[in-house]
Amino acid sequence: MADERFFKLAGPFNLNQLADIADAEIAGADRSGTIFTDVAPLSTAGATDISFLENKKYIDAFTNSGAGACLVHPSYVDKAPSDMALLVLEQPYHGYARIAAAYYPDLPIDAGVHANAFVSESASLGTGVQIAAGACVGDNVTIGNNSLIGANTVVETGVHIGSGCRIAANVTLQCCDIGDFVILHPGVRIGQDGFGFAMGATGHLKVPQLGRVLVGDNVEIGANTTIDRGTGPDTVIGSGCKIDNQVQIGHNAQLGNGCILVAQVGISGSTEVGHFTAIGGQAGIAGHLKIGDGVQIAAKSGIMRNIDSGMTVGGSPAQPMKDWLRSVAAVERLGKKKGNANG
Amino acid sequence: MADERFFKLAGPFNLNQLADIADAEIAGADRSGTIFTDVAPLSTAGATDISFLENKKYIDAFTNSGAGACLVHPSYVDKAPSDMALLVLEQPYHGYARIAAAYYPDLPIDAGVHANAFVSESASLGTGVQIAAGACVGDNVTIGNNSLIGANTVVETGVHIGSGCRIAANVTLQCCDIGDFVILHPGVRIGQDGFGFAMGATGHLKVPQLGRVLVGDNVEIGANTTIDRGTGPDTVIGSGCKIDNQVQIGHNAQLGNGCILVAQVGISGSTEVGHFTAIGGQAGIAGHLKIGDGVQIAAKSGIMRNIDSGMTVGGSPAQPMKDWLRSVAAVERLGKKKGNANG
Amino acid sequence: MADERFFKLAGPFNLNQLADIADAEIAGADRSGTIFTDVAPLSTAGATDISFLENKKYIDAFTNSGAGACLVHPSYVDKAPSDMALLVLEQPYHGYARIAAAYYPDLPIDAGVHANAFVSESASLGTGVQIAAGACVGDNVTIGNNSLIGANTVVETGVHIGSGCRIAANVTLQCCDIGDFVILHPGVRIGQDGFGFAMGATGHLKVPQLGRVLVGDNVEIGANTTIDRGTGPDTVIGSGCKIDNQVQIGHNAQLGNGCILVAQVGISGSTEVGHFTAIGGQAGIAGHLKIGDGVQIAAKSGIMRNIDSGMTVGGSPAQPMKDWLRSVAAVERLGKKKGNANG
Repeated sequence: MADERFFKLAGPFNLNQLADIADAEIAGADRSGTIFTDVAPLSTAGATDISFLENKKYIDAFTNSGAGACLVHPSYVDKAPSDMALLVLEQPYHGYARIAAAYYPDLPIDAGVHANAFVSESASLGTGVQIAAGACVGDNVTIGNNSLIGANTVVETGVHIGSGCRIAANVTLQCCDIGDFVILHPGVRIGQDGFGFAMGATGHLKVPQLGRVLVGDNVEIGANTTIDRGTGPDTVIGSGCKIDNQVQIGHNAQLGNGCILVAQVGISGSTEVGHFTAIGGQAGIAGHLKIGDGVQIAAKSGIMRNIDSGMTVGGSPAQPMKDWLRSVAAVERLGKKKGNANG
Repeated sequence: MADERFFKLAGPFNLNQLADIADAEIAGADRSGTIFTDVAPLSTAGATDISFLENKKYIDAFTNSGAGACLVHPSYVDKAPSDMALLVLEQPYHGYARIAAAYYPDLPIDAGVHANAFVSESASLGTGVQIAAGACVGDNVTIGNNSLIGANTVVETGVHIGSGCRIAANVTLQCCDIGDFVILHPGVRIGQDGFGFAMGATGHLKVPQLGRVLVGDNVEIGANTTIDRGTGPDTVIGSGCKIDNQVQIGHNAQLGNGCILVAQVGISGSTEVGHFTAIGGQAGIAGHLKIGDGVQIAAKSGIMRNIDSGMTVGGSPAQPMKDWLRSVAAVERLGKKKGNANG
Repeated sequence: MADERFFKLAGPFNLNQLADIADAEIAGADRSGTIFTDVAPLSTAGATDISFLENKKYIDAFTNSGAGACLVHPSYVDKAPSDMALLVLEQPYHGYARIAAAYYPDLPIDAGVHANAFVSESASLGTGVQIAAGACVGDNVTIGNNSLIGANTVVETGVHIGSGCRIAANVTLQCCDIGDFVILHPGVRIGQDGFGFAMGATGHLKVPQLGRVLVGDNVEIGANTTIDRGTGPDTVIGSGCKIDNQVQIGHNAQLGNGCILVAQVGISGSTEVGHFTAIGGQAGIAGHLKIGDGVQIAAKSGIMRNIDSGMTVGGSPAQPMKDWLRSVAAVERLGKKKGNANG
């Protein structure tokens, strides 16, 4: 089980309860009398644990697992050990996510304002809000019900934070609206000035940044990620976006709903990204571009042109994925020849 | 107008006042009786707004704009609508920067030390200094007049900060001197140990880092950027440099005046960069190199050799820009062929 | 000498003492009566300074140096000026590291809990621990002897920190164990949720992250670096690892002992890196890979495949170093031709 210092185990659950949580069909061995106490990987799970099979690379581990029950896709049911109960569903990993969250629910919020926190008299806090030690909540800030503001986090004047949010420690928020059920990890910076200057040969003049950052609902943003506010228009992060650590998003950029940005991605100013687009780690996108819906961008790509919806691209500058793979193969062949590149 | 929660509108101004602020000539329709109340983009500006035309891509928007007045280059005066007043100057965007700053001046500093801040008795604060909640100002720190130290920012022993500086929240400063009128955004880290070790096959020995970071005047540094102190020599950031978010600058690096570093750039130790050099996002520069004045480095470039003043380079490893563009085109052609790279 | 505001000079030492500290043999001019007061570079050192020669590029500076004594490899002894005392050893830079640390020892810890700090009643602090202003130490935290927790740093519930650690300001720690003699620079984030979602076309479901981060002894981690906790298994940083600024390490990643990670490196989830492997700046490693012992990875590389121990690789996607250099040369030749890539 998970380290008790950090995680609190709930449950136990029987198989019917687990099937309800995961929205799955019961099959396999009859384990209706078993009390399941925890989740565990296939390799270490025992008779009172529930595990999952997501990837066919692990079929051997599945076949040899001692797990009392397992979440599994219909197509692998016949590979199960004879004494294993099965919870059968199309998306076993989604089922696991729900069951793991039932065994290890978020720690409850400890409502109230810590004696070492500072909250402006003009701030408005919903019911059940926790303001942790050292946090600073500025004038006219509004925070919805049951939200947590972590230790030493700074919420500047006028910011709105929705309900059910978990803002971690050492975060800085300014000139932004944060939706409901948003998770911000430590060191996130939202709403600072964008990088806007009238450049000149003898000096650069700062251009006031008069927009905001608008963050939708159910967004998660990783540690030390930075999102600048707009120049006049707003910077927008659509609902359901999941953003990893150390991502940089420039002023006026707009992400649609459900985008996935892996760590260390950079999106330059005024670029628009559609819905459910996924961007691999360390990729960079130039400014003022339009990236469509459902685009897949390989890690480390450099995007210098617009990309139509549904495309998969890679490389720097990026190409359609098949072209890029051929370019890579060709360049590698050049590297394996001794002598002239043209052979 | 900008969101009143975050920005306070000043003004209004008449056309003569705006021409003075922007240092521009009045032309076009007679709007001498109009009271101008705000800045706005061409597409949404109305009769009491002033807008600007910087890029010829927006000439249609200019011609169709309802803006009462517009900052414009002399060459586009004849494209203006007949009822628009014009402020004519060589650099319309510079004029806009000045006028926007007049309508939305920096919020005034609220001088004084917050009850929740900690300031060492040996620290020396100028007049009009604000120390926000949770900030920690260490022994023998000196801070010039009218500077702001943001909430939960930490200024370690002996640091000097000049006048008119705006240090945001959650910043850490040590072993550094900061000039006048410097802006540091949230999460900036200046003056920590450089990455210096005597490497060995059985362990790495830490080498004391005995230098400082010297930051000039009118420098702006973006959120979560890190600048290490020197090993004995100092790390130097020249006056007027503008550094974006999540930039990394290694020990002993030296930037001349007026350099532009876009987000996620990395500059390795002991590299010297000249004056007014511009470095695109996610570019990296190896250590112990000399980069000249006025160099332009494309985004995502990898710099492994010295670069002469005035050059424009791209790629990784970087080449002169024209060569790089040809390399890119050649590699893309290889990717479009099925079969052997040598065709 | 180093700036007195930030560094405190110890010593002085005579040549016998310095030879003992560096574990070196005395040779060259007789300086047994000299009192050496400081370290200095070859170019500026005077008669009472000790310097070092590490790199043959500096032999001229060595030959012309006014340093009273110098640490030097046996092979360069005959290039020394006639009035210079020598400390001869195989690894002069290691000797310098030891001598510089003797002249400039770490500032002593000022034991005690600052009045502006918050420490939970259930936390357990060793002897000689300093908790600086604004720091927050949560329930059941344990901290070994003589460790420093910097200003405005947040140590969440249950974290263990070993002895002799120096945790800088504005750091966030959760769900982790930190070994002995660990140095964490400002803005480090350890133990936040990994980037784990059950992806879907209509939304992404958060997967509970139930592991920890285990950091060994004698590890140093640079400013604003982020290390996510494991999903169930732990994320592991081996003893003696040295990690630069703005590095990102994903959930379940494992580093062996003595690895070197230069700034802005990204290591994706579940990747295992062996012992004493060195990874250049801005390099990225995909997830679920195995990188061997003693591997050398060039800056900006993109690693998409496993790498055997002892290999040196570069490029993106990475190739063996010799192949990569040939690829680079070939691509640069393509860029220098006008016209068709196949010439």
